[in-house]
Amino acid sequence: MRGLPSIAPLATVLARQDGTASGTIDRNAAPPNLSTLANNTLFETWRPRAHVLPPTNHVGDPCMHYTDPETGLFHVGYLYSNDDISGAAGATTDDFVHYRDVKPDVPVFIEPGGKNDPVAVFDGSVIPRGINGTPTLFYTSVSFLPIHWTIPYTKGAETASLAVTYGNGSNFTKVNHGPSIPGPPYGSNALNVTGFRDPYVFQSPRLDALLDSDDGVWYNVISGGVHDVSATQFLYRQVDPEFRDWEYLGQWWSEEPNSTWGDGTWAGRWGFNMEVANIFTVDETGYDDGGDLFITLGTEWGYAPVEPQTSPQRNMLWASGTLSKNGTQHGWDHDSWGAWGHGKDDSEVKFQPNMAGFLDWGTSSYAAAGKYLPASSQASQQSGAEDRFISYVWITSNHFGDLDFPDDQQGWDGSLATPRELTRGTISNVLDNELVHETASWRVDSKSSTGDTVELVTLHQKIIREAWDAYTQNATNTITQAGRTVEQSSQSNTVAFDKSPSSKFFVMTASINFTEQARGNNSDVKAGFKILSSEHEETIIYYQFSNETLIIDRSNSSAAALTTNGIATTNEVGKLRLFDIQCEGEQEAHVETLDLTILVDNGIVEVYANDRFVISTWVWSWYASSNNVAFFHEGSQAVKFGNVQIYEGLADAWPERSR
Amino acid sequence: MRGLPSIAPLATVLARQDGTASGTIDRNAAPPNLSTLANNTLFETWRPRAHVLPPTNHVGDPCMHYTDPETGLFHVGYLYSNDDISGAAGATTDDFVHYRDVKPDVPVFIEPGGKNDPVAVFDGSVIPRGINGTPTLFYTSVSFLPIHWTIPYTKGAETASLAVTYGNGSNFTKVNHGPSIPGPPYGSNALNVTGFRDPYVFQSPRLDALLDSDDGVWYNVISGGVHDVSATQFLYRQVDPEFRDWEYLGQWWSEEPNSTWGDGTWAGRWGFNMEVANIFTVDETGYDDGGDLFITLGTEWGYAPVEPQTSPQRNMLWASGTLSKNGTQHGWDHDSWGAWGHGKDDSEVKFQPNMAGFLDWGTSSYAAAGKYLPASSQASQQSGAEDRFISYVWITSNHFGDLDFPDDQQGWDGSLATPRELTRGTISNVLDNELVHETASWRVDSKSSTGDTVELVTLHQKIIREAWDAYTQNATNTITQAGRTVEQSSQSNTVAFDKSPSSKFFVMTASINFTEQARGNNSDVKAGFKILSSEHEETIIYYQFSNETLIIDRSNSSAAALTTNGIATTNEVGKLRLFDIQCEGEQEAHVETLDLTILVDNGIVEVYANDRFVISTWVWSWYASSNNVAFFHEGSQAVKFGNVQIYEGLADAWPERSR
Repeated sequence: MRGLPSIAPLATVLARQDGTASGTIDRNAAPPNLSTLANNTLFETWRPRAHVLPPTNHVGDPCMHYTDPETGLFHVGYLYSNDDISGAAGATTDDFVHYRDVKPDVPVFIEPGGKNDPVAVFDGSVIPRGINGTPTLFYTSVSFLPIHWTIPYTKGAETASLAVTYGNGSNFTKVNHGPSIPGPPYGSNALNVTGFRDPYVFQSPRLDALLDSDDGVWYNVISGGVHDVSATQFLYRQVDPEFRDWEYLGQWWSEEPNSTWGDGTWAGRWGFNMEVANIFTVDETGYDDGGDLFITLGTEWGYAPVEPQTSPQRNMLWASGTLSKNGTQHGWDHDSWGAWGHGKDDSEVKFQPNMAGFLDWGTSSYAAAGKYLPASSQASQQSGAEDRFISYVWITSNHFGDLDFPDDQQGWDGSLATPRELTRGTISNVLDNELVHETASWRVDSKSSTGDTVELVTLHQKIIREAWDAYTQNATNTITQAGRTVEQSSQSNTVAFDKSPSSKFFVMTASINFTEQARGNNSDVKAGFKILSSEHEETIIYYQFSNETLIIDRSNSSAAALTTNGIATTNEVGKLRLFDIQCEGEQEAHVETLDLTILVDNGIVEVYANDRFVISTWVWSWYASSNNVAFFHEGSQAVKFGNVQIYEGLADAWPERSR
Repeated sequence: MRGLPSIAPLATVLARQDGTASGTIDRNAAPPNLSTLANNTLFETWRPRAHVLPPTNHVGDPCMHYTDPETGLFHVGYLYSNDDISGAAGATTDDFVHYRDVKPDVPVFIEPGGKNDPVAVFDGSVIPRGINGTPTLFYTSVSFLPIHWTIPYTKGAETASLAVTYGNGSNFTKVNHGPSIPGPPYGSNALNVTGFRDPYVFQSPRLDALLDSDDGVWYNVISGGVHDVSATQFLYRQVDPEFRDWEYLGQWWSEEPNSTWGDGTWAGRWGFNMEVANIFTVDETGYDDGGDLFITLGTEWGYAPVEPQTSPQRNMLWASGTLSKNGTQHGWDHDSWGAWGHGKDDSEVKFQPNMAGFLDWGTSSYAAAGKYLPASSQASQQSGAEDRFISYVWITSNHFGDLDFPDDQQGWDGSLATPRELTRGTISNVLDNELVHETASWRVDSKSSTGDTVELVTLHQKIIREAWDAYTQNATNTITQAGRTVEQSSQSNTVAFDKSPSSKFFVMTASINFTEQARGNNSDVKAGFKILSSEHEETIIYYQFSNETLIIDRSNSSAAALTTNGIATTNEVGKLRLFDIQCEGEQEAHVETLDLTILVDNGIVEVYANDRFVISTWVWSWYASSNNVAFFHEGSQAVKFGNVQIYEGLADAWPERSR
């Protein structure tokens, strides 16, 4: 898979009639009730071409990624199931554009059924040079279901076990002993947990120093919670060279159940149960042991009254902060401790957040799995990238199974989002006003010498460079749209692009500048773009200054929603603050430019803003003609659109797949 | 099963021809090579009638006993296997004479195969009022084999899990969660164990006080060892009312691998791995929370060089001692600690032996399982006994499978020994001489006011009173043999009893008095009895003063041993000290009387001496005529035999079994 294989002519994609199974459908006419169609009829309808997803059927959490030290290939993994099997499947890539299934025929490289995991295999992570120097998977081995934060936990339900690949990652063989971590702390430290899964392995010179560990020892963090006590993360340290044993170092990060960071504006809720914690340290350019410590995590919660085994709310968050040894506990009442199941908090090290935010604001975005990507990987060797930390977010297409989407008619559901590079990001020359001082997804890193401005630090997220370069440099069609300034419009104002893409496979960039008058609760300005639009359908992506939100309005996105259940038309909404920027020498501060990147891969829409905001979601436009893009503006304040580019085509991520 | 069912006439027993399967055998002629016979041909040949053993096939460790609080019936359990199934089986009794299988058709009340025990069910113990007030089994759930102290331990091989009976003990339903104790201490306390099994549950006001526990909380002790560090016992305390969680309190008793109590004379070796620890407190009359603390335990070891997965040596021991809080470690080098797998010894309480001995000196006697027997039990209500502690020892008939005994031809192997009452025993008026002062199976409890004599304390073992009373009071034939004094005999001197029993089912008592001249290494006196003897065979049970041993000489016990492999002819030997006794007013001390009780139940021979010594073993006399009993004496010192009684018949323990 070296080099770029030829991309299928875009015309082919456009001409392709859906309906790979029985019957065909007409994308130029109103849709029928899609749930009445034969299985797989919709297989191509919304299927992305540049994304990571299995050949068919269900994709769950991404997980178990690694760079094979022998081949330099990056392995991307994900939970997988079809009617017959479940487990984890994956693919390799040498460029983050093209992928090859590790096991084309029977997708899973590990499946449940062993002594440690008779019921299920859940998320895990990989030590690239593990047992015998071989990639070694540390995964959640499941013995009892159901597991849910709303119901009593079944002791022994989740343990952490080892599996080793002796080949190329197409199969992981379970190590022939019991779980390395046989469950949450028990006995005198008994914890009545809400969950205990997703072991995330990592190395940390910072922890080595704090804990006086041997250099290079592995740690792992298991995500979960304790009923009535906390949403939490359990820290462990490798004990022996075979990873057979791990030392429990306590709950290195705990938050009161369902509490929030600040008032909850910027980072949702910590939930009742944490999941999929990833730990990494990055600076402005990539992975750096001396960089800032970040954690990505999923949180599970619900609005009261919560019904058992429902978890309507999930937040895909990140946090950054500091570690301290024997830190004092923060934030909640200790009164209930000491009773059975509440354990003792004997953590040897504590994580204290100093900023937190959403990794993805999409209501279908969750379970991000990231991994250290070394400069020695094939992709990095080719792109010249230094060590990085990259992350794949899961975007479920049926809202975690809650929605009655016509999955069978589609033949698959969900995808991973485009991988992202996560770095420590800065926002410079920020006027030091009230916009800055909040418990938020940024922190003040330094003040200017004059004291008027500050430099903020936050998490930066960018589409992985190799994919970005491929999509933009190898586009089959590049559209440069002239910018425009809209003074005001008493009503909704849509101006079509001079030329729209001819397909639903493209990435576009644009910037929008607002005036200072746009600020404030009385502001009525909204500005952005209509995409995937036609006379029948439209999706509006816009920034609304009154509440600092970036919105994907899907209310009229899909004609199919009028005929078929389970096609979500709810808005996707995220919070983004545009600061006041005052560069040296400038007389007056100006509103930070909103830089948008919108990636459309058929049913998938990913919106990036200012390298620090992402919403990933699904848009199920029906009509073949719903390709149009337009400027969108509303309100009495002027905006200026600029730097508008569309790169059409993306890439066929799966050149070796039969379809 | 109330009351005593009619005992099968002894004549029936005697007349019964062996050979229940195909073909018969002639017990009046020399045996063929028994391994050539059809299966089950030897079923009745050596089968005991008064003992606890399964209807057919293999009995393993006794375990899982309890008194059902609802019925007052005592449940005796044991590991069981046949060609098709394995697990644990059991029976109930209201008198310790007669038993009824809890499940006559498919014997096992629990079998392996669940999530916690996919491979095997090993020993456990029962909380009579456990989950929901119902008898609750806490057992060794096995996930990986092999397990042996001579090979590396497979992490997760042995865990401790729960099962509950909702009926009458005929079935124990596994609790639907993972193991309550998911393995040995791990992580920072990681222990590279040699074994981790046989959870023994008990209550202990003494531990409650020491550990500031809630009154009546349950404890359990798991037996095992740590490679290169110790043979040990792990103490746990109940955490929650459902017994879901147990708090690890450390290794409450550890001994250096293969070390000995004193010079090893009196209590064998602590071995490399402890098994089947039982914990109980008794005074002179029975169970007493304020009594002395005793532990029975099995130890596994071997003479160097030990070959992997062979364990030729097993000792069935007891110890008594004291508990202290935060006691200091005793006895071995700490240098190796801190390395992986050696853990930390963070015991909150320490057991320190002050005497130890053999519970049974028989080389085939092992895995004793005892249980608190309340006065409220049906048997005790009938016998008037107060609270007791009773124990069943396992007597394997093929030396743990090592011997090529014709098991298939017999159709079964092994048995439990007659249950014993264990109490704190005293030896009074013992002259305070050098015989007393040793690291031994007794301790000096008090001195007399004159200072000349002491009272010793030891473990007393007596055949359970109900069985004893039944065998002696309901004997089908009682023989009173006149005593005799033998002055000296330069050579072996055998004097036949006036009347011998007419069967191989009897219990006899006798006393032997030695002179002080019998003491010393130069003593050549041996005195005892020949049993199961005829012109063809004989078994000699005698005390040999020169080395203070009580011996069962099986060298000529079985004509079958001449034709058939696997029929052991080795001597059974135990150490017994006869003290010098000087009662108040006596001029001179005399040698303590040797009081023997010999129980013969066809192939089983149990020898009790002075309530503080037992050898249980097998004697495979072949000839129907080998019923004779005789006095045996050898040596230049006089002995006096007295109090000789034979009670023939015993009892049919299984009146409801078809054979």
